[in-house]
Parts: sequence; C-alpha cells; structure tokens
Amino acid sequence: MKALILNGTLKPSPEDSNTGALAAFVGAQLTERGAEVEHVRLVDHGIAPGVVSEEVRPGDGWPAIHDQVVAADVVVFATPTWLGQPGSEIKRALERLDALISETQEDGTPMAFNKVAGFVVTGNEDGAHACIGAMAQAAIDIGFTIPGQAWTYWNKGPGPSDAAYLTAPAEEREWTHSTGAAMAHVLVATARALAAAPIPRPPNA
Amino acid sequence: MKALILNGTLKPSPEDSNTGALAAFVGAQLTERGAEVEHVRLVDHGIAPGVVSEEVRPGDGWPAIHDQVVAADVVVFATPTWLGQPGSEIKRALERLDALISETQEDGTPMAFNKVAGFVVTGNEDGAHACIGAMAQAAIDIGFTIPGQAWTYWNKGPGPSDAAYLTAPAEEREWTHSTGAAMAHVLVATARALAAAPIPRPPNA
Amino acid sequence: MKALILNGTLKPSPEDSNTGALAAFVGAQLTERGAEVEHVRLVDHGIAPGVVSEEVRPGDGWPAIHDQVVAADVVVFATPTWLGQPGSEIKRALERLDALISETQEDGTPMAFNKVAGFVVTGNEDGAHACIGAMAQAAIDIGFTIPGQAWTYWNKGPGPSDAAYLTAPAEEREWTHSTGAAMAHVLVATARALAAAPIPRPPNA
Amino acid sequence: MKALILNGTLKPSPEDSNTGALAAFVGAQLTERGAEVEHVRLVDHGIAPGVVSEEVRPGDGWPAIHDQVVAADVVVFATPTWLGQPGSEIKRALERLDALISETQEDGTPMAFNKVAGFVVTGNEDGAHACIGAMAQAAIDIGFTIPGQAWTYWNKGPGPSDAAYLTAPAEEREWTHSTGAAMAHVLVATARALAAAPIPRPPNA
Repeated sequence: MKALILNGTLKPSPEDSNTGALAAFVGAQLTERGAEVEHVRLVDHGIAPGVVSEEVRPGDGWPAIHDQVVAADVVVFATPTWLGQPGSEIKRALERLDALISETQEDGTPMAFNKVAGFVVTGNEDGAHACIGAMAQAAIDIGFTIPGQAWTYWNKGPGPSDAAYLTAPAEEREWTHSTGAAMAHVLVATARALAAAPIPRPPNA
Repeated sequence: MKALILNGTLKPSPEDSNTGALAAFVGAQLTERGAEVEHVRLVDHGIAPGVVSEEVRPGDGWPAIHDQVVAADVVVFATPTWLGQPGSEIKRALERLDALISETQEDGTPMAFNKVAGFVVTGNEDGAHACIGAMAQAAIDIGFTIPGQAWTYWNKGPGPSDAAYLTAPAEEREWTHSTGAAMAHVLVATARALAAAPIPRPPNA
Repeated sequence: MKALILNGTLKPSPEDSNTGALAAFVGAQLTERGAEVEHVRLVDHGIAPGVVSEEVRPGDGWPAIHDQVVAADVVVFATPTWLGQPGSEIKRALERLDALISETQEDGTPMAFNKVAGFVVTGNEDGAHACIGAMAQAAIDIGFTIPGQAWTYWNKGPGPSDAAYLTAPAEEREWTHSTGAAMAHVLVATARALAAAPIPRPPNA
Repeated sequence: MKALILNGTLKPSPEDSNTGALAAFVGAQLTERGAEVEHVRLVDHGIAPGVVSEEVRPGDGWPAIHDQVVAADVVVFATPTWLGQPGSEIKRALERLDALISETQEDGTPMAFNKVAGFVVTGNEDGAHACIGAMAQAAIDIGFTIPGQAWTYWNKGPGPSDAAYLTAPAEEREWTHSTGAAMAHVLVATARALAAAPIPRPPNA
C-alpha cells in the first residue's frame, strides 16, 4: 500500500513546518500499519496555477506530483489554517487534481476511485473543521473515498497567538496524536477493503 | 443491505417535495442494486432541537429515526438549498446524530463506522456543492465513510427562478439522473467492501 | 438605535446558555453605546420550518420575530457550534429571513438594506470561523451589511471537552470580551453611518 | 473614490478570462458611479505564498498590490469556481492580506476599516454562493465592510459544461448584469457613508 502526504505549508524548506511535523506523525502511523509513505512539500515544487495534469509552464512541478497521486492508494492532504480556511498551496494542488475527474484507469474507472483520502490541519487559531470540510468536499468531487473520522488537527482556543503544534507541551498534543493514530487506522483499513473489493466502473463513466 | 433516505424538505406531507422526488430516484437506483430502502420525511416527525439520541420532549420524533440510522448500512442525506446552504431540517438531523460520536457497536467500534453516506441536493439556485460539503463534513465527523462522487443534485443557472426538479424537462434532468445512478453504484459497492472487510475498532475507541 | 440579538441555543429556557451569556455581554456593550437591545431565545418560540414571513402553522413563533427584525437597525446572530457548524435554530431563523429578499421598505429599498449584522459563536470545540462565515454569507444574501470584524467567539483548543464559556476562568475570556466590545463598536458606528447616509434604492429593485 | 478589482483567474494574459470580463462589467458600473477603477490580474504578478505584506522572495509581485489595496476605498475580489470553491489565486491574495489585520492607519484604526469589499464569481458549474461566502468570511476577518448583496455571479445549471460567461447569450447574462449594477450601487453608497462618518478606532486596537 502506497501513501502520499501532500504538505501545504506556505513556508519553503528548510523552515520548520508545523503542518509537516503533524503530517510526519500521521505518516509514521501509516508506516507502522504497513504503508510505504512519501512526503511532498508542495511549496518547494513551484506548482503553476491551472486545472490540467500536464506541465502548464516550464518548471511547473505538478506533473511529477500528479504521477505520485495516481500511484498512491492513500492521499493525505495537510494544510495550515489562514483566515479560518485552507492555505493556497493545498488549494492549488486540489485545483490541479480537478483534472483527475476526467482521467480514468485502464478499465474506465475514474482515476481516484478506490483511493482514500484523509486530512491534517494545524493553526494557531480556530478553523480546522472548515479546512477539513473544504478539502473533503473537493476530494469527494474528484473521486476519493473519505473514511469516517479520517482527520486530525491541532490548534488552540479563541484568538490568535504564538502557540504552535511544534512548541506545544506533550499533554496539549495528546488528543491530536490519538486522533491521528485513529486516522491512520481507518485510512489503511478502508484502503484494504477497497483493494479487496474495488468499486467497479460506474454507469456514467 | 439496508438504505435509509432522510429527506430534509421544509414542506410537510402531502405537499410535493422536489428533494423527495430526486431522493426517490436515487432510492430506486439503490433498490435495483439490492438494497432495502426506507424513506423518512424529517419535517413530518417533529424532531426536537438537541444533541442526544433520547427523546428531548414529549412527541420528539428523533429516537425512532435514530434507530433506523443505527440499523442502516447506507444513509442518504437529502436537502433543499436555502441561501446557498442546507435546510434546517437536515441540519437538525445531523445535529442529533452528533450523539453517535460517543455511541459504539458491541465490539467498541464507533456506531457510524462501516456505514456509508451520500447526498442529494435540489434548489432553484446555486449552492449544491456547498450543501454537499457541509453535510459531508458533518457526516465524516460522525464516522460515516463517504465514497467518491456519492452525490447528485439539481438546480439551475444564475439567479432565483421558479424552475424546479419536478417540473424540469427530461433533458435538463439527464445529468442529475446519470449522476444519481452512479451515486447509488458507489454507495452499494463501498458498503459491500466495508461489510466484507470492516474497519476494526480504532486505537482511540 | 434598536439592536436585536437572536440566540440560537438548542436549550430551552431556563437552562443556562453559553451562547446567550456571551450574547448578553455583547448586548451590554451595545447598550453602553446607546442602542436599545432586545434578546430573543429562538428555541423558546417554536419557529416552524419555512421560508415565508407569515405564520406557517398555528403557534408558529416567527411572525413576531420577523417584525422585530424589521424594526431593528442592528441584528446579532448568535449560535452554538455543533459538528463545526451553526446550530439548526439560527439556521431556521436565517431560512425564514430568506423572505426578506423580496420584501421592501416604503421607498422600494430591500428590507434589510441599511441594517447591520454581527455574529456571536460559542462552542467546546473548533468551528467559530465556519459558523461566522455561514451566517455572514446568508445575511449578506438577505441584504444586511456586515462591518469588518463584527464578530466574537469563545471555544477551546483541539478536541471535544467540557470547557464552556460560562465556566471558563476570566483570563480565558479576555480576548473574547475585548473582541466583543470591538464588535459592538463597529456595529454601532456602521449603523450610524448608514442612518446618516442610507444606501438608496438599487437599480434592480 | 478608488476601486481596485483583483481578478483571480488562473489563466495568464493574454488569454480570455471570463472572470475578468464580468469584473470589467462591474468595474464599468463603478466608474459610472464616480470611482477611479484599477484592475489587477493576479496570476500575471507572480505572487509568492505567504502571510506578510513585504516581499517574500525576489520578484514577488505582492508588495505593489498591497499598496494598491491600502490606497483603495472599494476592493472587488473576483474568482473562477473550481471544485465548487474559489481559485488559488484569489485565495493567495486573501492570505497575503491576512497581514492587514495587524497593520493600522495613522490614527490606529485597523488598515481595512472603512474600506468596502464585494465579490464576483464565474464558473461553468455550481459554487458561486460558497465562493462568495469563503471570500466574505476572509474579508470580514481582515476588516473590510461587506454591504448587503455586494456580489454578482454567472454560472449554469447542474453538471459541468462548456458554457461560459463570455460566450453566453445576452438573455442568460441579464440577471448577472442587473445584479452587478446593484453591486456597484451598494459598494459606492456604503463607501460614501463610511467616508462621511468613518468607524473610529475600536477599543481593542
């Protein structure tokens, strides 16, 4: 089983990424359950704006990531929270994935069918459910299956602050980690169930 | 396989319901694929506001519907669009289903695990994706699995009008029906895959 | 200046309402700035589902509240957070207010023009920005003007808990209160600006 | 009065932009009402991902646009619809505007106070209300005031298609144009009202 984690932090390497750190936790949980995990930090790849899978301009980093998505059984969309919403990097990746709606597997099944998706959100303020909802709605449109409770997040209480996942004390990350382990559990179990009994080509394909 | 369709129209019986009519089309598609289908028109049941499964006040119609949800393998949430958002009846049902988060099956698995959910939206104006997104985010929280593209909708172009699913000419409903048949297909296939290889009790349960 | 606060708690009187308590704080701030403030606890009024201003069924509490909205210069929509979204009571009120889109003042101006709206959200978990966004989108559709930052909220960090606005220590409510005072400030200032120089009847009215 | 229109199309110049064309209609309506209108096609400016107003990397086009926003009385956010949501270009601009939350005018008033914002959405499918809602929630957070019904959109009925604002027959654009003229009307009237009686510095500034 192959898992791909798309980290939508706005900060290029080698800066610390809270989102990347929590995504790494989830990645380790996926590895423990038998998945081969790859991480992509989107902002490092110069993804061009667009809605096709092919290169939009020279240096466009998307085509390689597209191929990683196509090869994956599990895709985790990870994003920071800005203004209560997902960041523009994960938004850009989902936008490029719009093209998957009209791509098919060899047997005519839509490309994303039988792939599962989950979500990771970090932020110094409220907004995780909205980020999960926006990413889930887009992923469902594309054809990913979303297992129940296939998400985790870390943020804090009312108002902005300097608090962050990376610097939070262990007890404030406990729920986030417990939820992240459960997320890995449901992703792997659902991917296995769909691998054993895949959704066949639908009547409108 | 048992399927339950929750129709969130605001209009009590016996008024015509566009949402109910499109939900009936999806229900027939589920029946064709071997599901036993039940329909509940929520507004007829006097559901009290609340977030528990038990009766909130005398005459509260929720406990019986709760039991139907618990018995179902597939749940379809259907709603009209008001102000670009889901109606208050389906919202009220999802709110009551918040209680499922802390209910478990005999083996400790969260109650909604291995149930699948899909969505039906009608409206005389734009808003279907937002309705699907809001209902999906809530259903994922509760523990339902959402198969890729497990939704259909009918609305029309810019601005309000008197157009409606029930009175639209056949050619304007073609895409909606084709998408609705595919929705039934993915719901049944995913419910079968999860019945054959259920998500086991997660580590945080 | 008249201000109306619609409290969308799901709990009928006389139960404690966290949403009502924070709305009362905002109400006091509005009073201090010269507004006459009325509070309506929606769940106590048996509002019927529907999208008209008139009585939908015997005992429907909406028509009286409709008249209070029409008389108000400032309307505050207050809601608890369930599943990361606004509750069904405030949703139901907004749904009934859909009818205001086609009601006009004596001079033909849409009914809600020159009224301002703000938002109060409480919850034991993440979701405030999404609640504010959903209520704001609906209120803008109806014709209310939303001043910048005309909202406040209280919730807590990741994961569900028993924490609540009413029982939180003072220091955890400080940001919420400071933001709530600013909310009252911008609502009153904007209502006064629009009273002095009202938006005239638009060309599409 | 200065108005700035931010066109979030994903297509670089000189390609046709449906969003730009509808935004140009709204711009002309603003000009007719006395505003000096500037248009920025965001994708042509190589805006870097980030949440500060200063240059993030060499060639970052944001700082100049930031200054245009600061100089404007009216800002129109225009976006295409992808997967039922705003595009990543307008999302990126709003993300950079997050920095305005902590910038102030000379008297300490938050930078965006007394500026008004409106929204333009185009798409070949459903999603306009959700796009307006997401942009409005972000703009309100930043401090913009949103006049009632300060938006217009063009899309079409259920399902994807090749239909587009630019190629639609006149009668299918009528409602969109009528609504766009009303949008310009309320933006100008509200900006004038706030110019005559500005929101003073709030107590939390």
